[in-house]
Amino acid sequence: IDEEKLKKAGKLARRLHAADLADLIERLSYEQRAQLLDVLRDSFDAEVLPYLDETVRDEVVELLGPETVGRAIAELDSDDAIAIIEDLDEGEKEAILAAVDPADRALLEEGLTFPEYSAGRLMQRELVAVPSHWTVGQTIDFMRTNPNLPDDFYEIFIVDPRFKPVGVLSLGRLLHNKRPVRLRDIMSGDFVRLQAETPQDEVAYLFRQYGLVSAPVVNESGRLLGRVTVDDVVDIVDEEAEEDILRLGGVSESDLQSNVLATVRQRMPWLLVNLGAAILATRVIALFEGTIEEIVALAVLMPIVASMGGNAGTQTMTVMVRALAMRELSVSNAWRVVGKELLVGLLNGVVMATLIGMVAGLWFSPLIGAVIAAAMICNLITAGLMGTLVPLTLQKCKVDPAVASAVFLTTITDVMGFFAFLGLATAVLL
Amino acid sequence: IDEEKLKKAGKLARRLHAADLADLIERLSYEQRAQLLDVLRDSFDAEVLPYLDETVRDEVVELLGPETVGRAIAELDSDDAIAIIEDLDEGEKEAILAAVDPADRALLEEGLTFPEYSAGRLMQRELVAVPSHWTVGQTIDFMRTNPNLPDDFYEIFIVDPRFKPVGVLSLGRLLHNKRPVRLRDIMSGDFVRLQAETPQDEVAYLFRQYGLVSAPVVNESGRLLGRVTVDDVVDIVDEEAEEDILRLGGVSESDLQSNVLATVRQRMPWLLVNLGAAILATRVIALFEGTIEEIVALAVLMPIVASMGGNAGTQTMTVMVRALAMRELSVSNAWRVVGKELLVGLLNGVVMATLIGMVAGLWFSPLIGAVIAAAMICNLITAGLMGTLVPLTLQKCKVDPAVASAVFLTTITDVMGFFAFLGLATAVLL
Repeated sequence: IDEEKLKKAGKLARRLHAADLADLIERLSYEQRAQLLDVLRDSFDAEVLPYLDETVRDEVVELLGPETVGRAIAELDSDDAIAIIEDLDEGEKEAILAAVDPADRALLEEGLTFPEYSAGRLMQRELVAVPSHWTVGQTIDFMRTNPNLPDDFYEIFIVDPRFKPVGVLSLGRLLHNKRPVRLRDIMSGDFVRLQAETPQDEVAYLFRQYGLVSAPVVNESGRLLGRVTVDDVVDIVDEEAEEDILRLGGVSESDLQSNVLATVRQRMPWLLVNLGAAILATRVIALFEGTIEEIVALAVLMPIVASMGGNAGTQTMTVMVRALAMRELSVSNAWRVVGKELLVGLLNGVVMATLIGMVAGLWFSPLIGAVIAAAMICNLITAGLMGTLVPLTLQKCKVDPAVASAVFLTTITDVMGFFAFLGLATAVLL
Repeated sequence: IDEEKLKKAGKLARRLHAADLADLIERLSYEQRAQLLDVLRDSFDAEVLPYLDETVRDEVVELLGPETVGRAIAELDSDDAIAIIEDLDEGEKEAILAAVDPADRALLEEGLTFPEYSAGRLMQRELVAVPSHWTVGQTIDFMRTNPNLPDDFYEIFIVDPRFKPVGVLSLGRLLHNKRPVRLRDIMSGDFVRLQAETPQDEVAYLFRQYGLVSAPVVNESGRLLGRVTVDDVVDIVDEEAEEDILRLGGVSESDLQSNVLATVRQRMPWLLVNLGAAILATRVIALFEGTIEEIVALAVLMPIVASMGGNAGTQTMTVMVRALAMRELSVSNAWRVVGKELLVGLLNGVVMATLIGMVAGLWFSPLIGAVIAAAMICNLITAGLMGTLVPLTLQKCKVDPAVASAVFLTTITDVMGFFAFLGLATAVLL
């Protein structure tokens, strides 16, 4: 592309909202990205970085170089800065931290000491904390004259002399009271405190459960460190749901932006596990080679029983995995759900059995129809039972049910499907 | 349960946060629920209702009766009230609206005229709107003396004389300025306006894309009607992700709380479609009955090729469905992704083919190993191609790719798997 056009593109790009510019950068090819960033380098908007997908961000950070990135990071809120730095490799991390001024660097380095995906990593350090003996008027005056106020905040935190949070107060409530009123009389003392180590899915759960807008984060000794705000939680909810969707689909990470080799590497383990499971299921078929040799119709029909079991089981499993992730399922109602799914499996089994029984009866023989119908009922009951028990068991063993349920479940329904159908056929037809 | 214990339970329950009480109610059996609500009726906390799952809420509304519910609804914010009423059937709706006082009723009835799942249904009517010529001091005084202020708000809206929004101002920013400053000089005039008809997934997209905290909702003529806040968006993001997860798993709605018959009815359509697809795939096998009669080993091995195709295709499809839902995929990068997935399919195919070729070669014969290896490569390439094209095509036809992709895809990979394996075997081995 020629110079002229590129300059124009740069001008247009600079007028975009950071989020839209990030989308644009993601959609460009590598060469186009490099060219555009070259034009934008000197006036690069730091806010673009948090909006970029991780893979693309790595590229952009490399293209911009540590100095530009260091400058950009200093402009960002501390939570966004941490989110960007934590994903970089060690060398880049050091080069960029070296370009940040010492006070900011210390905060960033402290942030990085908290575990990944914890409240400590999510929190913003910028907040407003005042003592409980202050009045509404004092607080408003303090905010009016303090130049270091965060850009966006919706609640102020009330702290004791050791900087432990003792209350929160929404700005709306603050403004609704007269100047001489003391904060301790209007603050809410009953609020959620997050530990810096609290994992992010727990944070998301608490925000959702109690409809929070922001929450204070404290260290082990209860000192106020920062705050998590609801807009970060929207991103976590998204991320956690994405993780569940991808894992249920047998993908470990979103790889839309990854290159071919990285994608192959990410998807291979799951395919290997499934290959093992498929070979296991075929060992069951091999047991009945003699029967198939006599009645080839069985080979034609057998995938139906297995596949219907897999589908019905997946339905149940999906509902269970989602309910576990949303914490809607506990020991007290788990058994009721298992009982219900068994019944659902039986009823669906009877309907599907009738249909496939008639089709197979007309296509081959009534006896074959009866055998496939009976096998279908067996397998859909198995599917209902295993669709609930597999995720519950994995959850109990502290394995994420979204990752491993599908492969266990389909192996079981495949094995059961082949075994019930071919076994019954051997017993009845031979 | 005896009276004494029930009273104690009621006392304990009243001390819970509304969200926790809602969880408790969801976990009880029908009889326990009825007993607990009987005790709580007179002091029923309205805030519990929005937290309940739809199925359970229907029951609770019936158990409490229209009068108690009407009283409860009058206490709620308008968006929560609408969310509860919209799910009820006509008779209940009328009975409850009759118990609400006329001014509230008019607002609720207007809310119900907006399409379901739109900004109009989500919005809260309670907001703070002031003219742009007001000063910071005037605004603070107005808020301090106005008794009808909403409970939580983070931004005020600046309106022109016809009540059209011309700017937004965060409370933080308001407090950061001196009393004589005019709002028009500090407000942000560049903000997102939602139409009342804007669908909720679009609302969620805008909040996520631009990191919004609240946004004004306007009618066709641009008049300010209400506001959507980020806490509602957390719920939508959850709902939309849940919908995608469930649909990919072949379930139309979350049915954890549904009874057996409702669950059977909800899951049946998907199972019927899959039965049809499975029968279709077996027609392909039937074409090669003669070949299977000669070499039974083919019947043993053939599910492997089909199942691996299904798994690889599901991986690709999941990434695509998610990317489409997150709007990360557009015409400009779609073809690049299709090309990448073809290559990924080829590479994964080569690895899986080598493995299964060796296993089948040792188990049966080298020639059978070669046939299954070739079929595996064919089917994994098909899986990569179809895993991208099926969701893209459905999206283009305005069908939700999450609903229908899986059944199309697995039918294609089953048919291709059986056809490639048995067809090659017929050509090479007979």
